[in-house]
Amino acid sequence: MSELAPRQLVDDLIVSNRILSNEGVLDAFGHVSARHTTTPDRFLISHTRAPELVEADDLQLLDLRGTRVAGGERRSYEEVAIHAAVYRQRADVGAVVHSHAASVIPFGVTGVPLRPIYHMASVIGDEIPVWDIAKRFGDTDLLVRDAAQADDLTAALGARTVVLMRGHGCVVTGSDVRAAVFASIYLERNATLLAAALRLGDVRSLSAAETQRAAAMLRGHAGERAWEYWVRRLPRRGA
Amino acid sequence: MSELAPRQLVDDLIVSNRILSNEGVLDAFGHVSARHTTTPDRFLISHTRAPELVEADDLQLLDLRGTRVAGGERRSYEEVAIHAAVYRQRADVGAVVHSHAASVIPFGVTGVPLRPIYHMASVIGDEIPVWDIAKRFGDTDLLVRDAAQADDLTAALGARTVVLMRGHGCVVTGSDVRAAVFASIYLERNATLLAAALRLGDVRSLSAAETQRAAAMLRGHAGERAWEYWVRRLPRRGA
Amino acid sequence: MSELAPRQLVDDLIVSNRILSNEGVLDAFGHVSARHTTTPDRFLISHTRAPELVEADDLQLLDLRGTRVAGGERRSYEEVAIHAAVYRQRADVGAVVHSHAASVIPFGVTGVPLRPIYHMASVIGDEIPVWDIAKRFGDTDLLVRDAAQADDLTAALGARTVVLMRGHGCVVTGSDVRAAVFASIYLERNATLLAAALRLGDVRSLSAAETQRAAAMLRGHAGERAWEYWVRRLPRRGA
Amino acid sequence: MSELAPRQLVDDLIVSNRILSNEGVLDAFGHVSARHTTTPDRFLISHTRAPELVEADDLQLLDLRGTRVAGGERRSYEEVAIHAAVYRQRADVGAVVHSHAASVIPFGVTGVPLRPIYHMASVIGDEIPVWDIAKRFGDTDLLVRDAAQADDLTAALGARTVVLMRGHGCVVTGSDVRAAVFASIYLERNATLLAAALRLGDVRSLSAAETQRAAAMLRGHAGERAWEYWVRRLPRRGA
Repeated sequence: MSELAPRQLVDDLIVSNRILSNEGVLDAFGHVSARHTTTPDRFLISHTRAPELVEADDLQLLDLRGTRVAGGERRSYEEVAIHAAVYRQRADVGAVVHSHAASVIPFGVTGVPLRPIYHMASVIGDEIPVWDIAKRFGDTDLLVRDAAQADDLTAALGARTVVLMRGHGCVVTGSDVRAAVFASIYLERNATLLAAALRLGDVRSLSAAETQRAAAMLRGHAGERAWEYWVRRLPRRGA
Repeated sequence: MSELAPRQLVDDLIVSNRILSNEGVLDAFGHVSARHTTTPDRFLISHTRAPELVEADDLQLLDLRGTRVAGGERRSYEEVAIHAAVYRQRADVGAVVHSHAASVIPFGVTGVPLRPIYHMASVIGDEIPVWDIAKRFGDTDLLVRDAAQADDLTAALGARTVVLMRGHGCVVTGSDVRAAVFASIYLERNATLLAAALRLGDVRSLSAAETQRAAAMLRGHAGERAWEYWVRRLPRRGA
Repeated sequence: MSELAPRQLVDDLIVSNRILSNEGVLDAFGHVSARHTTTPDRFLISHTRAPELVEADDLQLLDLRGTRVAGGERRSYEEVAIHAAVYRQRADVGAVVHSHAASVIPFGVTGVPLRPIYHMASVIGDEIPVWDIAKRFGDTDLLVRDAAQADDLTAALGARTVVLMRGHGCVVTGSDVRAAVFASIYLERNATLLAAALRLGDVRSLSAAETQRAAAMLRGHAGERAWEYWVRRLPRRGA
Repeated sequence: MSELAPRQLVDDLIVSNRILSNEGVLDAFGHVSARHTTTPDRFLISHTRAPELVEADDLQLLDLRGTRVAGGERRSYEEVAIHAAVYRQRADVGAVVHSHAASVIPFGVTGVPLRPIYHMASVIGDEIPVWDIAKRFGDTDLLVRDAAQADDLTAALGARTVVLMRGHGCVVTGSDVRAAVFASIYLERNATLLAAALRLGDVRSLSAAETQRAAAMLRGHAGERAWEYWVRRLPRRGA
């Protein structure tokens, strides 16, 4: 697979699939992609397979319309359009996670805003919009299947890090794979904590300035510390 | 056991018992059955044993009255009448799961409807009735012990996929074992998510049309992807 | 330890300590005892040690005042008075579990009655009193340290299976070790489910007659099926 | 590392990092320190690393201003100022835990007091203040980065065992490492239980006298029993 992309990128992408499964963000579904480091109009993503099982051989190279340009001929995920649209419209994004993380779903089907309540979750940003596919596309199977739907979703995302999808899940972006993993995990943790806090009473979220400052702090070496931890927590692969 | 049924059916049934235990749907109790592939008036089910421990040798072949016609002479589950009644009245059903999944029980003892709030749970259907054994049978031990009770339960199920049993658990059907497993797992996940969402505020469920379209989509290869994942998560059996 | 009691009783007691730890009923604290099978004015219990770690060598034989009459000289649990009082006053009881099971604690500090909402939990009985040590003994360290306190607790228990202790935990009784384990586990499961159901709305518990009939049913072979399951779930002890 | 501190202290500190990770109190972040046994104006703490991964070689010796005086030159945790300030101002404190324990965070962002509701949690004390960094320092990244901030936090802690930090986590103190671990774990357990109880209705906490008496009781051998248990639950380190 070294032909598809630099080894470091491939390794990070494989490991990110396993970390996000092990940390409860992904299950049989959801997917992670990474923009090609040196060919920015290409991105790497597995063919359709449960993330925890993804190996380097499963990766495909897609263009920014979601068309396979290298890698095995196996069927792509139904929703590669999401990834393609984000990479097209957001030059600052190097990795995209699409998940159905359990704690996040309830915020997509109620009107309750998902905001960071502790510094670790500041990376998800001060504001998280909820996109509803039905608004423009009526009754669907909820999947984002084409560029029109994906562009609409990406417009709702705007310049932010996270967008929720009503009745479906969420999209999390990052400057690189490790940043997207970090944001995905703390999005999940924060949603759990916020739901618990809301049951206790009125909740004070981080201020916009706190969110910005804490996020800047976490973009430093904290990410490497967490990545090392999550890697060590991975179950050993069968001998 | 190859005399009882084709190997593929036996394998799927054994593995489904283990998957549903490992994924938190079954514990010491509950059971899974499968209609015989080539003799549709027979179904396979274990003798009374915790599902996680079921091996091929534990299977029995029963007729549509719940009478054992092949397999070891060990005691049957108390509630084989449930399975027999569903297979009698629903020619489209190839597998039945009866569980006490924890997240589902609260919906059976309150008046709160259990409806799908995200696309993965669309397979449970737009409407899930709650059957109360006491309505026709008064104070019982809650078990469905005979054809009269099982027929009443199956009438409440109607043409749907799932029926809840007040103070007891639920019955989930599928066209085959893998479909019944998929619906059982996402019924459990959706009940957890819906309960969490209801604590946040008013919840928007999938529309009837969304439910139908998403369920049609999931009847495709998504099921195989999930099955592969759940199989890989199974603990290795003792060396 | 074969001098202390029949091997079967010793084995069941050791395994029950491990099962209740593995199933989330006991942690570093709590204890299980068993009345001596042939000398009913004696009972077996470990010296003070986390239940999961208890081995046959840790067992002591105590009389019905809680005084050690055989076994190693190590320090007894602070609260052996609980076990002694129950065995003194309840000839039908063959085993006692004292736990701080997490889901049960909230019912002891609020006025909300803990009642069975599904058939598996019928074994906990139709009515579970809450005993408050402060009522007769004022401000204490909450431990039941002497016969006066233990008798007061046992009076609150009466002829029932379970009594909650405000700000502390609960006592669960059984005709033998396996029955007490079964009731302890489903008490914990039911408390979790009832709390979840109460958050949804009004809850319909089992009727008194349903509770009685389902409990009678579960006293049969269902217990053996569950015991086999819980034993198989135990982690292997270090090689 | 035997040059840095007595072996027992080093061992307890390493094991405490692993216990608190394994018991769900620490994740990739948070840290534990211990005052040097014979040189009380020094304390031991790892360089910046996920607690579960900390080994003896990772420890550094710091003075009460948080300056490294022995051990490897690797980067310190950002918030060593917290530990230094507590050791400066509280001669009775021998160990400090800083965590983001999930169940505790909601109490820091709502006005709901975190009080002990069962005897095991009496060690957290009758009153737990919430410190808000914004009150004196405005919009920050929420980290406690200097002596002024740490002194303010420590003033809020006062003579108590625990202080919550709004939008961040908590600080738990102990006379030694094992006492701080005990309080940290039962703080986490009690926060979970209290949140669950508050959803049921009005909650009766321990009285101040009960809290004091139960805490005195738990300072005895109960701690050793729990420590043995938590050590045994640790996953074995690599092969």
